[in-house]
Amino acid sequence: MSLLPEQLLTGYRRFIEGRYLQETQTYRQLARDGQTPETMVIACCDSRAAPETIFGAGAGELFVVRNVANLVPPYNPDGDFHGTSAALEFGVQALKVRHVVVMGHGRCGGIKAALSPDHEPLSPGDFIGKWMSMVEPVAKGVAANELMTPGERQTALERISIRHSIANLRSFPYVAERERRGELSLHGAWFDISTGELWAMDGETGDFQRPLVDFDEPSLA
Amino acid sequence: MSLLPEQLLTGYRRFIEGRYLQETQTYRQLARDGQTPETMVIACCDSRAAPETIFGAGAGELFVVRNVANLVPPYNPDGDFHGTSAALEFGVQALKVRHVVVMGHGRCGGIKAALSPDHEPLSPGDFIGKWMSMVEPVAKGVAANELMTPGERQTALERISIRHSIANLRSFPYVAERERRGELSLHGAWFDISTGELWAMDGETGDFQRPLVDFDEPSLA
Amino acid sequence: MSLLPEQLLTGYRRFIEGRYLQETQTYRQLARDGQTPETMVIACCDSRAAPETIFGAGAGELFVVRNVANLVPPYNPDGDFHGTSAALEFGVQALKVRHVVVMGHGRCGGIKAALSPDHEPLSPGDFIGKWMSMVEPVAKGVAANELMTPGERQTALERISIRHSIANLRSFPYVAERERRGELSLHGAWFDISTGELWAMDGETGDFQRPLVDFDEPSLA
Amino acid sequence: MSLLPEQLLTGYRRFIEGRYLQETQTYRQLARDGQTPETMVIACCDSRAAPETIFGAGAGELFVVRNVANLVPPYNPDGDFHGTSAALEFGVQALKVRHVVVMGHGRCGGIKAALSPDHEPLSPGDFIGKWMSMVEPVAKGVAANELMTPGERQTALERISIRHSIANLRSFPYVAERERRGELSLHGAWFDISTGELWAMDGETGDFQRPLVDFDEPSLA
Repeated sequence: MSLLPEQLLTGYRRFIEGRYLQETQTYRQLARDGQTPETMVIACCDSRAAPETIFGAGAGELFVVRNVANLVPPYNPDGDFHGTSAALEFGVQALKVRHVVVMGHGRCGGIKAALSPDHEPLSPGDFIGKWMSMVEPVAKGVAANELMTPGERQTALERISIRHSIANLRSFPYVAERERRGELSLHGAWFDISTGELWAMDGETGDFQRPLVDFDEPSLA
Repeated sequence: MSLLPEQLLTGYRRFIEGRYLQETQTYRQLARDGQTPETMVIACCDSRAAPETIFGAGAGELFVVRNVANLVPPYNPDGDFHGTSAALEFGVQALKVRHVVVMGHGRCGGIKAALSPDHEPLSPGDFIGKWMSMVEPVAKGVAANELMTPGERQTALERISIRHSIANLRSFPYVAERERRGELSLHGAWFDISTGELWAMDGETGDFQRPLVDFDEPSLA
Repeated sequence: MSLLPEQLLTGYRRFIEGRYLQETQTYRQLARDGQTPETMVIACCDSRAAPETIFGAGAGELFVVRNVANLVPPYNPDGDFHGTSAALEFGVQALKVRHVVVMGHGRCGGIKAALSPDHEPLSPGDFIGKWMSMVEPVAKGVAANELMTPGERQTALERISIRHSIANLRSFPYVAERERRGELSLHGAWFDISTGELWAMDGETGDFQRPLVDFDEPSLA
Repeated sequence: MSLLPEQLLTGYRRFIEGRYLQETQTYRQLARDGQTPETMVIACCDSRAAPETIFGAGAGELFVVRNVANLVPPYNPDGDFHGTSAALEFGVQALKVRHVVVMGHGRCGGIKAALSPDHEPLSPGDFIGKWMSMVEPVAKGVAANELMTPGERQTALERISIRHSIANLRSFPYVAERERRGELSLHGAWFDISTGELWAMDGETGDFQRPLVDFDEPSLA
């Protein structure tokens, strides 16, 4: 049996013979001097929404956490280990990133599961159920709103959940402190897989808008 | 203030005017039909080791979890919510991926922290400390070996930790069952940031080797 | 019966009709004036790791000791005769070499024996067992580490043993003295039989790296 | 400072870009299957007399011990560790070589030292003096023979010493036993640096003769 899936080996060969050759000096410097990304992204595991692809990011640019539905838990220093909180601590306190972006996307399977809480668990442990219970407080109201279509409820919760995660980010004392001092800014973004459009959250209002369309570009997709 | 960091907006413009234009049909189909990735990757948050970049992967190819030091916890159905376990459940039970790859990399900050357990916590909650305690059982023996250089200890634990995570993967009943039935295979990989080399784990021995060097490529050095 | 193995006679004929013809003047001069090699190599007996081959060395270039596992004993002026110490004295004090290189290699049978000290002796005298007891102090810690694969333990001890031999070199007063005066430098190297790669020891950290990859060559993989 | 002497790096580059490329499959097979050399050579450290060069030997062909003056000690199972005895045990008992060749050469510095036993030690430990004391029993008679020129005494002792080492080889019980069974043959050879001539010992008479000249070739060098 092959050591790695064929598709990955083929892709790696493309990388090492192409992009890596062009960026060899960057990689060597990043190895020698360590990473100093300016931005941390909390994104979803979804195969259609990789932050490096969408943001055309090169090596060393984005420090990236990916979990189902790009959730941030509330601050809980007495709790069990939590991967996202650990990554946040590392990104903000050790790497001193200047931006944290919570990036959601359309047609998110995790959000969909949160909107149908009585679905059959995927396994006896129901890890997805437990995980998505983090958004239960904000999901209930949306799920019950029968005036919205299922598609609208889905988009609505995807965006509500981003605002919810950003509020949770601010429950971490050092995040709030750095933001207050102007050393850190928090952002929300939402990617539309179908059209390729990127929507960014207005920090004041919480509304999502398309930054290129609204400010720079005549048309998109 | 800008809605998103300038660097991300610039990169996104590159994506939407370049890659997305070429792959519009792929994105539309992925939006319509949903994702069906064959491979799930459990990778590190490190900005220098994005799986999509290293494996030259396109939209829809890789379902990706990223946490500090690419750790998989042991199966614990009675525990708190756990992001990686939730993602694993979703990837294996819902998406029915055929491969799970645990991908580590050199100079990993999380592994470095695990090798110096008495370091000052990054914040009062010491989230990194708690998170990396997951590898404590395997870190001790390596940390104590003063005959190895710090660099050698680091590489050793990075690889031991990958094997440890793969063993933890097998503690999930449905992972073990699907593997037994030949529907799922588990892999380990380790990326050398400095040289761009990819090392893949031999499933029998646990040793890491370079698949292109060992099987396909005439030249080395 | 033939005076010499056929293979050696055939090879010698190739030498005398080829290389020797081209280098006749060099050989004559070396015979007349004596040898003045700049480098002494302490290498293993292994048939796959001849220093002259790997370093493409011509007549008169390398003064070479070869023993099982390329070991250097600690300085012991009151001990029995010791071949490696005698060669070191000759190389450093009589020939005044400017470099001593301890060169190990992968898959070394001697190191393998040192990692399984309870193996059956090869003969009643157990000469290999006695010889490899020289690395016993550094072999123990590695042999006990069950988290590493046998292959990883082997590579680790091969490199630790090189550092151990270099430390022993410095226990010879004249070696230390000449090094202090800048007249002699000590090096470690490790040859990977499978890939042909040469790894060189960083004198400061003790880490091994590939000099051509790290400094000169654009391509890898 | 460079990790390795420049000359060695240059030579290695030649090897990896030339010979290794041509013999890649051989090296990989030797790594995978282990070494199975048919011949063990006990040679001198002298930079002008590398066995692989003189016998045009490729990877995996010769298992080589090199010490000052290519000496074999007598069998002494109760003694200290001895590198040459350890290598012999490994070559004969583990690798089961079919030939052992003791190869001396002209203008040997070690033999010269043995012929002037009252010379100043090279260092307080006098490791060379102790080492060459191994041939003292056979050196005395030659050193005292004032009818021979210094050059004749030197060549005489070089050849006597080879016969002496071969006698010592036979003091190892397993060497004698395998030779008796026809599984192992012992050979002597002597290389003339100046002319490139190889002289081989007649096993019956102990005389040295040139195998190519005597049997095949009209002229040499």
